[in-house]
Amino acid sequence: PNKKITAAYINIGDEILSGRTKDKNINFIAKNLTKLGIHLKEVRIIPDDKKIIVNTVNELRKKFTYIFTTGGIGPTHDDVTTEAIAQAFNKKIIRNKEAERLIRENFDDTNPEVNEPKLKMADIPKDSTLIYNPVSFAPGYMIENVIVMAGVPKIMQEMFKNVKKILSKGEKIIHKEISLELPESILAKKMDEIQKKYYNISVGSYPFSKKQKDKIIFYGTSVVLSGVNKKIIEDAYIEILKFAKTKINGKERRYK
Amino acid sequence: PNKKITAAYINIGDEILSGRTKDKNINFIAKNLTKLGIHLKEVRIIPDDKKIIVNTVNELRKKFTYIFTTGGIGPTHDDVTTEAIAQAFNKKIIRNKEAERLIRENFDDTNPEVNEPKLKMADIPKDSTLIYNPVSFAPGYMIENVIVMAGVPKIMQEMFKNVKKILSKGEKIIHKEISLELPESILAKKMDEIQKKYYNISVGSYPFSKKQKDKIIFYGTSVVLSGVNKKIIEDAYIEILKFAKTKINGKERRYK
Repeated sequence: PNKKITAAYINIGDEILSGRTKDKNINFIAKNLTKLGIHLKEVRIIPDDKKIIVNTVNELRKKFTYIFTTGGIGPTHDDVTTEAIAQAFNKKIIRNKEAERLIRENFDDTNPEVNEPKLKMADIPKDSTLIYNPVSFAPGYMIENVIVMAGVPKIMQEMFKNVKKILSKGEKIIHKEISLELPESILAKKMDEIQKKYYNISVGSYPFSKKQKDKIIFYGTSVVLSGVNKKIIEDAYIEILKFAKTKINGKERRYK
Repeated sequence: PNKKITAAYINIGDEILSGRTKDKNINFIAKNLTKLGIHLKEVRIIPDDKKIIVNTVNELRKKFTYIFTTGGIGPTHDDVTTEAIAQAFNKKIIRNKEAERLIRENFDDTNPEVNEPKLKMADIPKDSTLIYNPVSFAPGYMIENVIVMAGVPKIMQEMFKNVKKILSKGEKIIHKEISLELPESILAKKMDEIQKKYYNISVGSYPFSKKQKDKIIFYGTSVVLSGVNKKIIEDAYIEILKFAKTKINGKERRYK
C-alpha cells in the first residue's frame, strides 16, 4: 500500500468567484484528506458553467486518484453540475429511486411541498453510488473516481463523513511544526541544506511576526516538516533546533 | 471599452493544500476584482512546485486578461515562484537595483542583517515592473499580464492597492441581492424563466435557513442578480418580488 493517493478538489461556484461568498469548504477538505493520508494536489474554483465543469472534470480525473466537487447540485436553473458530470462520463441521467424516496419521505414542515424542482435532486448519472446526508437528505454521489457533493458547508461535511469510509487511505502524513524567533532570511541557508539532506520529507517555511501594541517585536518563522517517515522528521527537527540555538533569539516558541 | 476584462488567480501554497493554513486571499482578490469590473473566471491552488507553476501560468496567461499569483516569493528554498515565472516567460532573473535599494534601506531593528537570502527577494525576471508595498518593502512585480504578489495577506493587500492603479477597468458589475422566505424548490421554475427572459444578466440562487434555538423556522433563498445593465437588473428584481408576494411566506427579507 505504498502507492501515493492523490486528489483534486473542484469548487463550483459563481458566488465564490464574484466575492459574494467566502469559501468555507477548501480548508475542511484539505485538512480531512491530509488526515486520511490523501495528498490534495490541486484546488480549482470554477463558474457554474456546464462546458467548463465538463472540461475540468475530464482533465483532472485522469491525473488524480480522486476528484471531489462541491456546488451546483441544488434544484435551480444555475445548478448544472449533474448535467456536466453525466456528460463528462457519457452517462444518462436517471431518476434514482432511492434518492427520490429520501426526498419524498424526509421533508420539513417548513418546506413540505414535493415538486419537480425538488425531485430534480434525485436525477443522478447512471451507475453512481449515492452519498447520504442527514441534513437536506438530497444525496450526493460518486461515479468512478469523482465524488459530487453539495456546496452548503454543513451538508458537504456530512457527505464527506460518509464518503470517507469508502476511500482508499494513504500512508499517514505526519506534520511537525517548529516556531522559531528568527526571521526567514537568517534561516534560509540552513533550511535549504535541511531540505537537500532530508529529501524524503518536505520542509516548509512560513514567516510570521509578533506584535506588541502595534509594534513588531520580532519576526519569526514556522518551519513545517511533513512526510510519512517519523524518524526522518525527528532527525530534521533536532538539527533545526540545534541550529536555531546557535543564533541570537533563536529560542523555540511553540504557539500550537 | 466594452471588452470584457477577465482574470485568473493562482494561489501558490503547499500550506493551503495540506490544510495547515486557511486561505485569506481568495475572497479579497475576488471582491476587489469585481469592484474594478474585472471578471474573475478561475482560481487555482497549486503546490510550491516549479514545473507545476510554469505550466499553470503558461496555460492561463493565454486565456485571461490578467493572471494574479500569490505566494512563493520569499527568501527560502521553498520559494520557487520567481524561478518559475522567469522560465514561463523565458526571461533571465536579474538583481533589480531598485528592489535591492528598498530591501537595504528599509529594515527593521528586529531584522537588520542584510544577507543573501534577503537579497534573493530583489532577484526578479528581466522586464518586470515592480509592485511596491510599505510592509515588508520587498516588492512584487508585473511581467506582461502576470502580477506576482506575496502570500502574506497584509503584504498582498498593499501590493494589490498599488497594482490596481495600472489595471484596465471593465464595465462596473452591479449586484442586487434579494433574500426571500421561500425555499429554492418553490422558486426554481420562476428563476429559470427569469434567467431566460433577462439573459443579459446572471441570476444566482443560494439557499439559506433561519434557525431559532436550533430549530429551523424557515428555508430561504437569496437571489443574486449580476450584470452591467442597471435597468435590466431592476426589471428582473421587480418581477421576482411580484412573484414572491403571490406565495405564502413569500415576503422579502433583507438581511444585508
